[in-house]
Amino acid sequence: MGIMERTLICETPKAVGKEVLLKGWVNTKRDHGKITFVDLRDRSGIVQVVGSGGELSSLKPEYVVEIAGEVKKRPENLVNPKLKTGEIEVEAKKVTVLSKAEELPFDMGKEVLDLTLPVLLDNRAITLRHPTQKAILKVQEVIIDAFRKALKEKDFVEFQAPSIIPEIPEGGADVFEVKYFDHKAYLAQSPQLYKQIMTGVFERVFSVNKIFRAEPSVTTRHLAEVVSLDAEFGFIDSWLDVVEMAEYTIRYILKEVSEKCEKKLAMFNATIPQIKDKIPVVKLREAQEIIFKRTKIDNRKEKDLSPEDERAICEWALEEKGSELVFVSHYPTKSRPFYTYPDPDDPEFNQGFDLIGRGFEWMTGGRRIENYELLVEHAKEWGVNIEKIGLYLQAFKYGMPPEGGFAFGAERITQGILGLKNIREGTAFPRDMERVDFRLSK
Amino acid sequence: MGIMERTLICETPKAVGKEVLLKGWVNTKRDHGKITFVDLRDRSGIVQVVGSGGELSSLKPEYVVEIAGEVKKRPENLVNPKLKTGEIEVEAKKVTVLSKAEELPFDMGKEVLDLTLPVLLDNRAITLRHPTQKAILKVQEVIIDAFRKALKEKDFVEFQAPSIIPEIPEGGADVFEVKYFDHKAYLAQSPQLYKQIMTGVFERVFSVNKIFRAEPSVTTRHLAEVVSLDAEFGFIDSWLDVVEMAEYTIRYILKEVSEKCEKKLAMFNATIPQIKDKIPVVKLREAQEIIFKRTKIDNRKEKDLSPEDERAICEWALEEKGSELVFVSHYPTKSRPFYTYPDPDDPEFNQGFDLIGRGFEWMTGGRRIENYELLVEHAKEWGVNIEKIGLYLQAFKYGMPPEGGFAFGAERITQGILGLKNIREGTAFPRDMERVDFRLSK
Repeated sequence: MGIMERTLICETPKAVGKEVLLKGWVNTKRDHGKITFVDLRDRSGIVQVVGSGGELSSLKPEYVVEIAGEVKKRPENLVNPKLKTGEIEVEAKKVTVLSKAEELPFDMGKEVLDLTLPVLLDNRAITLRHPTQKAILKVQEVIIDAFRKALKEKDFVEFQAPSIIPEIPEGGADVFEVKYFDHKAYLAQSPQLYKQIMTGVFERVFSVNKIFRAEPSVTTRHLAEVVSLDAEFGFIDSWLDVVEMAEYTIRYILKEVSEKCEKKLAMFNATIPQIKDKIPVVKLREAQEIIFKRTKIDNRKEKDLSPEDERAICEWALEEKGSELVFVSHYPTKSRPFYTYPDPDDPEFNQGFDLIGRGFEWMTGGRRIENYELLVEHAKEWGVNIEKIGLYLQAFKYGMPPEGGFAFGAERITQGILGLKNIREGTAFPRDMERVDFRLSK
Repeated sequence: MGIMERTLICETPKAVGKEVLLKGWVNTKRDHGKITFVDLRDRSGIVQVVGSGGELSSLKPEYVVEIAGEVKKRPENLVNPKLKTGEIEVEAKKVTVLSKAEELPFDMGKEVLDLTLPVLLDNRAITLRHPTQKAILKVQEVIIDAFRKALKEKDFVEFQAPSIIPEIPEGGADVFEVKYFDHKAYLAQSPQLYKQIMTGVFERVFSVNKIFRAEPSVTTRHLAEVVSLDAEFGFIDSWLDVVEMAEYTIRYILKEVSEKCEKKLAMFNATIPQIKDKIPVVKLREAQEIIFKRTKIDNRKEKDLSPEDERAICEWALEEKGSELVFVSHYPTKSRPFYTYPDPDDPEFNQGFDLIGRGFEWMTGGRRIENYELLVEHAKEWGVNIEKIGLYLQAFKYGMPPEGGFAFGAERITQGILGLKNIREGTAFPRDMERVDFRLSK
């Protein structure tokens, strides 16, 4: 038996009448009198194994087993159309337990869907084995691959941005401090400065790297550790070139997910966001005016959209423009990082933008200042330590083209596409102020 | 002019007789009396621009410019066979400076190659623009893509491993501490525990993630921040299945680099490591015996190979087995992490292995303990805080197949293939105890 080659479960329908050796996890077990049915799971699928001996009957959910047996066609009336292997079953001849499993704290079927988030995460090593949780991570894999593919098709080079950085260029208190030998350093909130340096090198670059935010509050949309999909490119004619590349990229991602994840989307009753024509672009002040007219809530002097505003502008975009996504641009210059490009026609507002989808932010981007003197001036005005961003400034001192870029959070897009209630479901091992694998407060 | 579309430099040879608009950096400039020659650089290549006006003559290296002009065939005797665009040149009609550059601190030609490493890194934003430095990063991009491709072809799923972790499972002092809200956390030295958890989910997984080592010394082979290429998979029959998958993966990477980076390898006089047949596998004690016979240096009781040993065993592998790579296995169980699988025939030694290439370690891997009780016992014996790795142990409590895996450092392979003297050249923004962008001691 040991010399028999493993057959993957997905291959069993083509092996009717043959002896096979299956390896996998016991998904479920049902005893019907003397006959036992086991649904066996491996990376390729699930198959029904049937037997009458005590060996099968002694198995329990999540046991890891080898089962040698014969593949048989099921009688017509017992065919299971929901299962890819539903036309066959495997008659067990020999069962070998490779690893036992303790009794599960909950049923691994539908019950997992009813778990509260803390319980889901407390038991992450096993709840990740549930089909819905696996589907989320696979959709995310497709999203990240699509991002990479979209940009490679446009001549972008992937680079590795550092995680440990010497200064906090974006300001704010939500940064993690690292004891770096005898010095103080920080975890990057974004690869911004580095992707700009690399734009001076390769002209078009992207990175898929972790970013870190010490969010001092627990929301359904923030994580302390995020997979950031970052792009930056030079020789733009206008900030609208950046909007266009961002739109191309998100459309590419949505197309790939729609083509490769049909069944996974169905598990969540999820649909790909609709975009009738182009994604509409509105300036912040225009958006606030629209929101005021629709809701009578007056946020027209605020420097950002509130969560309610984000929902309202999305409703407008869908109703008026047939789009579930909308770009909002021209935020107050002072409220955005020092490198954002002020609009020459109205320097109080800048050429930065956010992509809002289904009621929350999916992406942020914009044109950046490429002029060395202006950049230094802004950095000082914004209170950034010039010495510590010397490497960054060097790139501009020695010739930088007009440029811009954008960044998605992979978990946010996953959440947006699948309609996840909490962003923590959109990552295998979420980090927040209350949890690093286990609950910190306990 | 503004409405003219940009032509990439690589497209100019096909545009003879046409007006084009080029955008790029001034690579070099030569004045010959009234005529000025500018080598213009963009992401696609370099082209010679020629003109007699003052506009071209006023340009300096690294200026960012738009040049409108006409593409002309060069006279036969002026063709430059070293340049892809060497049969043409562009006669400048209009020059627009987009960004100026200060005078460079050194010549961007060959002089960059003579810079000391500290100076190379002090000026990283501009030295990265040198062809050799760009080539290194592009080779690394190919290496990482090849790793991904190799494993996807074998049904592996990519997942995102966390960087912030609650406990140091591998022990050792070389770990970075993070102030995590009101708690203490660490930067991951490896995604080991998480890839094992994910093996319980997808059976075959890989990750491309940063790992962090607080190396207290400065060597030519260690970085504080490393891009780790990690794989882990279940249902192995023996630790040799892990060796085989590791060999498949490194061969795949080497093949891709050899096919896609021919010119870049030539820039470094680099060759792909030779493997005559299979990569030889020797046990540590056998390796030490071989080394003793060859060098008369007796390290036969040491628990690891010294740098000299690594060089010696590589010499042996090349001379005796025709391979520049060699697997060394069966290190003393106590000297490896708690999860490594002790050899049943001789539990003092385990089924972990390293891949040594060209005199240093390229990869580490091995079979892991899948039995819950043994794993807990080892963790305790190794002094790991059981409570803090609860999530990891959970995966084993509920059924884990026999499994193993391996990990490469992307910078190490880059260094190994290109023969870089210092690993810092193998990364855009190296971090070590003396530097985070700038020198910490200054």
